[in-house]
Amino acid sequence: MAQWNRSGYFRSSGSRDVNPDLETERQTASFSVERLTAILDGGADNTRTRRAVEAVIHSEPGFSRENQYFQSQNERYEAAVRRSVYLKEKMHQMGWTEDGPEIKYCYRALGGDLAFNVHRVFKNSILALGTDEQIAKWIPLADKYHIIGTYAQTELGHGTFLRGLETTAIFDISTQEFTLNTPKISAMKWWPGDLGRSATHAVVFAQLYIKGKCYGLHAFILQIRSLRDHSPAPGVIVGDIGPKMNFEHIDNGYLMLQNINIPRENMLSRFSQVLPDGTYVKRGSDKINYLTMIMTRIHILWIEVIPTLLKACTIATRYSVVRRQSKLNPGDPEAKILDYQTQQQKLLPLLATAYAFHFMNAYVNEFYNKGYTEIRQENFDSLPELHALTAGIKAIITEYCTAGAEVCLRACGGHGYSALSGLPFLYTKLAASCTYEGENTVLFLQTARFLVKCLAAVHSGQPIPPSATYLSSVDSGKCQARTSVDFLKPDIYAEAYRHRATRLLGNAATKLQGLVQSGAEQHEAWNQCTVQLVQAAKAHCHYIVVKNFIDTVEKLRNEAEIQKIVKHLCDLFALHGIFSNTGDFLYAGYISGDQIDMVTASYLDLLAVIRNDAVPLVDAFDFTDESLNSALGSYDGHVYQRLYEWAQKSPTNKQVSQAYARYLKPLFQSALSKL
Amino acid sequence: MAQWNRSGYFRSSGSRDVNPDLETERQTASFSVERLTAILDGGADNTRTRRAVEAVIHSEPGFSRENQYFQSQNERYEAAVRRSVYLKEKMHQMGWTEDGPEIKYCYRALGGDLAFNVHRVFKNSILALGTDEQIAKWIPLADKYHIIGTYAQTELGHGTFLRGLETTAIFDISTQEFTLNTPKISAMKWWPGDLGRSATHAVVFAQLYIKGKCYGLHAFILQIRSLRDHSPAPGVIVGDIGPKMNFEHIDNGYLMLQNINIPRENMLSRFSQVLPDGTYVKRGSDKINYLTMIMTRIHILWIEVIPTLLKACTIATRYSVVRRQSKLNPGDPEAKILDYQTQQQKLLPLLATAYAFHFMNAYVNEFYNKGYTEIRQENFDSLPELHALTAGIKAIITEYCTAGAEVCLRACGGHGYSALSGLPFLYTKLAASCTYEGENTVLFLQTARFLVKCLAAVHSGQPIPPSATYLSSVDSGKCQARTSVDFLKPDIYAEAYRHRATRLLGNAATKLQGLVQSGAEQHEAWNQCTVQLVQAAKAHCHYIVVKNFIDTVEKLRNEAEIQKIVKHLCDLFALHGIFSNTGDFLYAGYISGDQIDMVTASYLDLLAVIRNDAVPLVDAFDFTDESLNSALGSYDGHVYQRLYEWAQKSPTNKQVSQAYARYLKPLFQSALSKL
Repeated sequence: MAQWNRSGYFRSSGSRDVNPDLETERQTASFSVERLTAILDGGADNTRTRRAVEAVIHSEPGFSRENQYFQSQNERYEAAVRRSVYLKEKMHQMGWTEDGPEIKYCYRALGGDLAFNVHRVFKNSILALGTDEQIAKWIPLADKYHIIGTYAQTELGHGTFLRGLETTAIFDISTQEFTLNTPKISAMKWWPGDLGRSATHAVVFAQLYIKGKCYGLHAFILQIRSLRDHSPAPGVIVGDIGPKMNFEHIDNGYLMLQNINIPRENMLSRFSQVLPDGTYVKRGSDKINYLTMIMTRIHILWIEVIPTLLKACTIATRYSVVRRQSKLNPGDPEAKILDYQTQQQKLLPLLATAYAFHFMNAYVNEFYNKGYTEIRQENFDSLPELHALTAGIKAIITEYCTAGAEVCLRACGGHGYSALSGLPFLYTKLAASCTYEGENTVLFLQTARFLVKCLAAVHSGQPIPPSATYLSSVDSGKCQARTSVDFLKPDIYAEAYRHRATRLLGNAATKLQGLVQSGAEQHEAWNQCTVQLVQAAKAHCHYIVVKNFIDTVEKLRNEAEIQKIVKHLCDLFALHGIFSNTGDFLYAGYISGDQIDMVTASYLDLLAVIRNDAVPLVDAFDFTDESLNSALGSYDGHVYQRLYEWAQKSPTNKQVSQAYARYLKPLFQSALSKL
Repeated sequence: MAQWNRSGYFRSSGSRDVNPDLETERQTASFSVERLTAILDGGADNTRTRRAVEAVIHSEPGFSRENQYFQSQNERYEAAVRRSVYLKEKMHQMGWTEDGPEIKYCYRALGGDLAFNVHRVFKNSILALGTDEQIAKWIPLADKYHIIGTYAQTELGHGTFLRGLETTAIFDISTQEFTLNTPKISAMKWWPGDLGRSATHAVVFAQLYIKGKCYGLHAFILQIRSLRDHSPAPGVIVGDIGPKMNFEHIDNGYLMLQNINIPRENMLSRFSQVLPDGTYVKRGSDKINYLTMIMTRIHILWIEVIPTLLKACTIATRYSVVRRQSKLNPGDPEAKILDYQTQQQKLLPLLATAYAFHFMNAYVNEFYNKGYTEIRQENFDSLPELHALTAGIKAIITEYCTAGAEVCLRACGGHGYSALSGLPFLYTKLAASCTYEGENTVLFLQTARFLVKCLAAVHSGQPIPPSATYLSSVDSGKCQARTSVDFLKPDIYAEAYRHRATRLLGNAATKLQGLVQSGAEQHEAWNQCTVQLVQAAKAHCHYIVVKNFIDTVEKLRNEAEIQKIVKHLCDLFALHGIFSNTGDFLYAGYISGDQIDMVTASYLDLLAVIRNDAVPLVDAFDFTDESLNSALGSYDGHVYQRLYEWAQKSPTNKQVSQAYARYLKPLFQSALSKL
């Protein structure tokens, strides 16, 4: 490579200089990136803490994710365990606590590439379902990683439908033990993380039987591997479920139980207990456990899902101002691909979506905290709303983020398809989020069920939960916009979204009612409406996200520059939604064809406006290069050099393939005499 | 595993018995699967030939793709080379020729997991661009794999914009040689398949310079690795570009050239030649080369893209009748997930799409053959249409197939995300097709450019190419349907699609014209219309696919049973397209809100009708289990058993991870005294 170094063209990717095409973009920012970063972080103090944590993590080779894209499933698992064990030590050393602010920044810096995520669920389930004695026994061990636990709920044959789980736990009065069994192959526990290779213990969900009577699902804690040599406990068959589309660093596992006996005190017994004589005792309401599920959903959105879209946007946007291809005008140099309207149309609405979802954090937290306080006081009134809201929001956010990462990947052309871009990793990671912690279609239908009830409450004059009060407002019938500029008024587009959500729900509910009235069974009628109910739930969630974006813009009134650009993003998010779903707004004549033309004009104009701030807007997310782990997305924009340097490290360039000696050499020898 | 075998529940996946839930689905088929298979194969003779080829391939362990999902990039490459070399021998042994019918069935049986695909492009480029002498010298060597060639066109900095390629070839009269150089890093050849590790030779595209004057892109053949020991030729820097989202079996490579001298006769000179004195001579038209590009696009659709969607549909549909989850009615057993309307809505329109695209084969072939004959006679009149049609069809088919495979993956829940389902592999393979052989947005815009010209021809009374004649027909203004049953009439929905295509093109063209008339530069005006031009091109392609589906149904008039079910699929494809894009039809009032309700009703009714034949409809694709390579999709439907058996083979279950000894064992020892 001497030639390149001599010419000075081929810069080392460690150097400070920035690709001039990227540099230019930063010089014309209409706002202070640092200030926007502070707002996104929830304050400049948080930004400082985050950066301090990132500096610690990135300075430690034990945390490195270098060469990750070349690693096998085995290697990725080992590296994740290494990082997790190091992190535990480092946190102790730095005085960072499990509930301190630093832990989420560690996770962010490491791109989530840590082991023992389900170990945390194991702990939380003991904390939620266990008695004080059980908590005192198990939690200290789990806290120090002296045991690693998994949460074994999902089975090969059952995920969504928990009541259908088939693992059994039979109480034997004579021995005072439960006997756990996997009665058939579909009952095998399948998917739990940390189970495949790491876990020593498991919280296992099984149908409890006492004297032949089934008492439904209960949680049992059992040891599955020896603490001495890690071999499976007698009667336990355990292993790894093999390769997945991503999450290779996690050892998702399977578990079969053959007549495993555990003592009576190993049933988690905060809410129900089996007495020595076999009497089953229920205590208090276990509704509070829904909070754990809801909290987990909220958690993965902010920790896993939304940041992943932010990263994908960062990578694709930076690359799109470095990449030049074809000419916009015959005499000019080749154009930055972000100057093409079609590229703007792919990336900029996603950037707006990224901001929209990031800002949902405050909204959902407020909802959760209110519900949490009430529920802790045994007032469960707000639970259905909290459940429905988080279900729908989880579904819409994971859906949009997954689709968005795919758009980013494809918007980077061939180089986006290279693992070294980081985009395949981000997309495949997001794809899982549409299924885990609740399959999205199932979740949308749970939201829909809540909304149908709310609508019935509207009609019967009952009180309506806050997130659905809009269902009772009077529909103006027609959109009031007269010019394309009118569509930049939040009132105008919020009202359009409100109309759409109300109308789609109304139509689905009317159909449902009609079917039932004409004699269909309730369940069959519901099934025949589910396609439309999902549409209604999506429209409801979309409306909530738009509404919250508008509220966020209003709250920025003391930050003029930032309010202006965030308002543009809010407008873009809202108008892109109308532009992409025109039928929903045209259907009942709420918006006319002429008004759709106005929306289109305003939408396309906004693309050109936001394009100028696109790079500063992704810079404000403030991801470190190490966290992005992308040859296309680094801050300095030296994409081609980095692609070339990283490719050198690929094992395919280090090993001589046996394919040559075995299959090709004899063939090539034949050509020697002829060439 | 003794317990499972004893009980008889846990069947070996090699056994003949079929999962009863899958069996039931086959017993109620409304048509002969064998007959439909013959139609899809283009005749029962073809089916016989295909099955004979599949039997040969699957009986040979050298072709096996077992354990593919556990393999590293290195291992996948080696296996692909092995299969390709074996295949060459096997074809010779069986008397199958390169242009015989068997080769495409070999490719199908092996799921495309072969090396040397770009070697074929290398050969074709010599055949197309080389003189008779050049063909006589190189082709026999390439035919026997005595040399392996690559087609080195794309550079790190240039893919779409060929004129921007930066590699140089300077002719030196004194030595009668060309000197090839990679003048900067962005000029490095990047992506060519078979280049990374296999190729001995390359056809390299470079800007030709003679006496300081640039004559544009030309193709040169050069040796890049030693035939003796495979080391890079002096001045050649070559390697593998590393991991990708898929295509790990292909050694996509990079190539830098530093003062490589090649003799004058190594420029491919059928259409242009450099004489010894440096005179540049052009001969005939090289327009004929477009045919190669067009042929390649058509080829990948039928060989790579469409069959991949067919496979994804097969896997997801079979799984969806084996998987039972939740209850449709409280008292019933758990329901097959395909009985849920939302699952039908995900999978059945895809099944219709798979048929729609498969049937496009005949249409495109007819177009191509007509064009080919004319162009061979130096009549290039049909070239623009052929080019525009194949560009748009390639783009729409790859787009829909990619989105479709993703839907299939997610419709299988967690198990779809397991690599063992085969679906991640199919999806990630399809994702590449949206970029290779023409980036889809660029292709749609090429189609749009053609359509804008056609529309101008309509207005000026010029002749219009056949695929666009519909632009000149008179629009009825309003859809004539009065009931939901009316929407099952092909005339009704074809007319709706025609209206939409015409209207979207008209709007985009009017905007374009308006911008130019108000003083915008032509290129800038074009850019500002591209979002809408892409919409118009998509609508055009969609119309063509619908129209061809209707024609196909008509041709099945002697196959009553089959015509009936294929007509249902055609209706579903068309109505799903309207249901998913209602705004396009509502915008100008062509379809009313009430009519959209009719479309929705007919569409949802069709889902329930086609659901009954869903399994027979995927069975008719007749993929072997080996070709599907899916734990979820096999013919016998023993999905859980297969997932479990395959997981056992994962390297994660064969190697003891060092993570335990290094990081976990010391921690677990601490718990020993406490538990």
